Amino acid sequence: MRRFVAEKSKQHCNIFFNKKTSSFISPSPFYQSSIRHLTSASSPDSMAEPSPSHVTIQTINPKVLKCEYAVRGEIVTLAQRLQEDLKLNPGSHPFDEILYCNIGNPQSLGQHPINFFREVLSLCDHPAILDKSETQGLFSADAIERAWKILDQIPGRATGAYSHSQGIKGLRDTIASGIEERDGFPADPNDIFLTDGASPAVHMMMQLLIRSESDGILCPIPQYPLYSASIALHGGTLVPYYLDEAAGWGMEVSELKKQLEDAKAKGVTVRSLVVINPGNPTGQVLAEENQREIVEFCKNEGLVLLADEVYQENVYVPEKKFHSFKKIARSMGYGEKDVSLISFQSVSKGYYGECGKRGGYMEVTGFSTEIREQLYKLASVNLCSNISGQILASLVMSPPKVGDESYESYSSERDGILQSLARRAKTLEDAFNSLEGVSCNKTEGAMYLFPRIDLPQKAIEAAEAANTAPDAFYCRRLLNATGIVVVPGSGFGQVPGTWHFRSTILPQEDKIPAIVTRVSDFHKKFMDEFRD
Amino acid sequence: MRRFVAEKSKQHCNIFFNKKTSSFISPSPFYQSSIRHLTSASSPDSMAEPSPSHVTIQTINPKVLKCEYAVRGEIVTLAQRLQEDLKLNPGSHPFDEILYCNIGNPQSLGQHPINFFREVLSLCDHPAILDKSETQGLFSADAIERAWKILDQIPGRATGAYSHSQGIKGLRDTIASGIEERDGFPADPNDIFLTDGASPAVHMMMQLLIRSESDGILCPIPQYPLYSASIALHGGTLVPYYLDEAAGWGMEVSELKKQLEDAKAKGVTVRSLVVINPGNPTGQVLAEENQREIVEFCKNEGLVLLADEVYQENVYVPEKKFHSFKKIARSMGYGEKDVSLISFQSVSKGYYGECGKRGGYMEVTGFSTEIREQLYKLASVNLCSNISGQILASLVMSPPKVGDESYESYSSERDGILQSLARRAKTLEDAFNSLEGVSCNKTEGAMYLFPRIDLPQKAIEAAEAANTAPDAFYCRRLLNATGIVVVPGSGFGQVPGTWHFRSTILPQEDKIPAIVTRVSDFHKKFMDEFRD
Repeated sequence: MRRFVAEKSKQHCNIFFNKKTSSFISPSPFYQSSIRHLTSASSPDSMAEPSPSHVTIQTINPKVLKCEYAVRGEIVTLAQRLQEDLKLNPGSHPFDEILYCNIGNPQSLGQHPINFFREVLSLCDHPAILDKSETQGLFSADAIERAWKILDQIPGRATGAYSHSQGIKGLRDTIASGIEERDGFPADPNDIFLTDGASPAVHMMMQLLIRSESDGILCPIPQYPLYSASIALHGGTLVPYYLDEAAGWGMEVSELKKQLEDAKAKGVTVRSLVVINPGNPTGQVLAEENQREIVEFCKNEGLVLLADEVYQENVYVPEKKFHSFKKIARSMGYGEKDVSLISFQSVSKGYYGECGKRGGYMEVTGFSTEIREQLYKLASVNLCSNISGQILASLVMSPPKVGDESYESYSSERDGILQSLARRAKTLEDAFNSLEGVSCNKTEGAMYLFPRIDLPQKAIEAAEAANTAPDAFYCRRLLNATGIVVVPGSGFGQVPGTWHFRSTILPQEDKIPAIVTRVSDFHKKFMDEFRD
Repeated sequence: MRRFVAEKSKQHCNIFFNKKTSSFISPSPFYQSSIRHLTSASSPDSMAEPSPSHVTIQTINPKVLKCEYAVRGEIVTLAQRLQEDLKLNPGSHPFDEILYCNIGNPQSLGQHPINFFREVLSLCDHPAILDKSETQGLFSADAIERAWKILDQIPGRATGAYSHSQGIKGLRDTIASGIEERDGFPADPNDIFLTDGASPAVHMMMQLLIRSESDGILCPIPQYPLYSASIALHGGTLVPYYLDEAAGWGMEVSELKKQLEDAKAKGVTVRSLVVINPGNPTGQVLAEENQREIVEFCKNEGLVLLADEVYQENVYVPEKKFHSFKKIARSMGYGEKDVSLISFQSVSKGYYGECGKRGGYMEVTGFSTEIREQLYKLASVNLCSNISGQILASLVMSPPKVGDESYESYSSERDGILQSLARRAKTLEDAFNSLEGVSCNKTEGAMYLFPRIDLPQKAIEAAEAANTAPDAFYCRRLLNATGIVVVPGSGFGQVPGTWHFRSTILPQEDKIPAIVTRVSDFHKKFMDEFRD
């Protein structure tokens, strides 16, 4: 029966994805079986039994079945099992810890939070201590001042109250000012929707735009699987466009046009274009000229530009700079009436990496009031995003300034993290490129490397025999040999017949040499074993 | 065109709701136009213009258009406008402040957070101060101890990291222990899914269960509009069952059976029963025997019991006690294999009322491992809920115990709030019952009163002339005359031809006498104006 389910699910994927990419998120039976370890039911019998309510895998919403999320998929489940093993039987594996390079979760790997941000959050959580004398000794003066300022922006200073559905107005004012400072163009606090991380904002837009399978969303391949997952959950069609690996994961407007026309010919109404800049999982930073072409394309085709700009602080090369799509559009003279543009931002990324706080926002421009009313209504159904996340979103868009007591320590923390990330990216890039049959583009930005592996035919056959994708086979072997967790390229999409994996650049710097050695040793042995 | 949209939207509702209740969430044109004030577009022109991407009200997902959420609907929009007016022109209205009785948001009306909970949150947000000497003077010893304990439960003590998709394991252990203590039956931490408030958990279950319009969810009428909204958004059918107002909003299993059979006859597959206990907006607390009948009904009919138990701490009458549905089911000898049961809990309600923290969980029992894997995957797509909310959920399920340093102050805060809520409920209930043509059931629990108003025929005609529902007409007049915001019964559903409104019991006690006077004066004048 389990096999039947996997087969059925695969069929759904074929409906939804371009034939060319049909491989990229087909659920492997391995995923179905391995995840079992993670969510053990109370009663061991319940595994074999159907639910008493007759809710079975055959009778749930098929869109749920179809959705996949590789970043927390089979490999992570295996990693968690190995970690349990290590705890119970130290020495049972050829490594003594699991290194999670599967997910952009910096603080889980030892990155410290920015002190100023945490001071302010702590004070806003417990305003009762704000005017106590001991507080002066524990917190910096500008953190205390900022906490007062934020509390004054919150009606009744009630950090435990639901806010306006779009988020606290004063915090949106601060965010809008931060955007203006970044872009040099006006930003309106009424355009800001604060959300629990960027993911709910993406879901909200998909929910608004997708009516049926006939509605398509242009997404990069490779892509961050939130997009394929949310398109699947909302019942739409992912229309892939390929990034050009040979050109440093470049984005060609000719490719966009081609895929748009192909989709139209198949009866798909393409509603929107997703651009991830800096790129995830691919790490490229778009050139300004390229961004202008993309804006022009969206304007001409009447597409909503969904700009995933959550890595806007993560740029590591001097020759590239982050420009928001809104800045680009406005600098081209395009305003509200010319292009519909959503920018997503999150407190989970940047140098702050506050994933657990679930803060984020979207800036919504170029929609009629009627449509904005509908978005407001969607936001209202979930009442509001969490207030700590809202406060943190205002802080990352308005950090300490020159002259503030915390400025020096803040900027040294920030620069230390960003410079270290740049070094780690370069070291890992070089290490991957030194491996036989591996080529890896530069990480210009974001938090990832996406090396390509030319797998020997024998390895591909062994993977097929094991009923798994060749890159998943490689990643599984890597994990079993080294404790290092990376995500197979098939979870993000890739040109058929090519194989990749995504690794974060996030392990702390003192761990990087060991990672390089372990990966190199593993890779050599793997190639020796499967060399044609 | 606006008129066309409203008409179109109304048609959708008719498809989705029982004819008997078709009135209850039909969107009024008033709603469509009044919300405009809340989300003003950057460019005033954009109101008249279609979006540049050709995204119009006619081309968005019709499920979004269909969804309504009265608690933050037209009346609140009007209230916000009046509040602006008062700020700009003090004295421009016959009241000097707006009193928001529309939403269960205690801290927005001056309720203080529980000190111990905030101490722990504050320390977890900024662990760097935990071992500083000044901290001893600012925080209670058991709060410091609890913060250490919680940090030890978090891998790497990283409160800024994404957690396990279901939430931090150690916190789920604490919550499971709290449930065991409450119920006297085992609870499994693997059954807990921590969420940003209870709303995302409800959405997750609707997403899992609803495949199409042919799938129905039995919901109480009156109901909390999250249910109608999420059923609409996920494209299912709300199958109403009526609570018996004459029997104190009693829940009759014969009514459930009747509505289930009616739905089946119309080709609707009913998948689940929603029960809200204590009731929202109706305030009743179910009797144990009644709960047993409901469990038996769900078991026999193979329905998933979705138990909204977010008001479990809010019971005000000595003759009633909260019992979780899981406790009831287990006490009947029913286990995992007998009934599928989800319990929703939230940090937003109870005596703590921490709405802005967005903490909550669902306890999922009686599903096969395969289904649980799908729920886990859905949770993974959004990574995890916010960690502060997770911590707070563990705190409300494990507050200070006798002997802890904070116990006395904690229990006095808790009892003070709950006793005051009980007094406020009684005063308001008596006040409503003293009004001509108004009858109001007792608030046994939760945070609301739902009085019924027998509106004079002339008032109904005046409402029709104003193109609005009669209860909305009444609430609007009440707001304009007194500044008091309540929600029309039509937002929750009611027996056709009856009219109600929902008022919270949350204004601080010193405001209650003035509210009573203002409502009484208004009501008398209203009745005098429209008396037949």
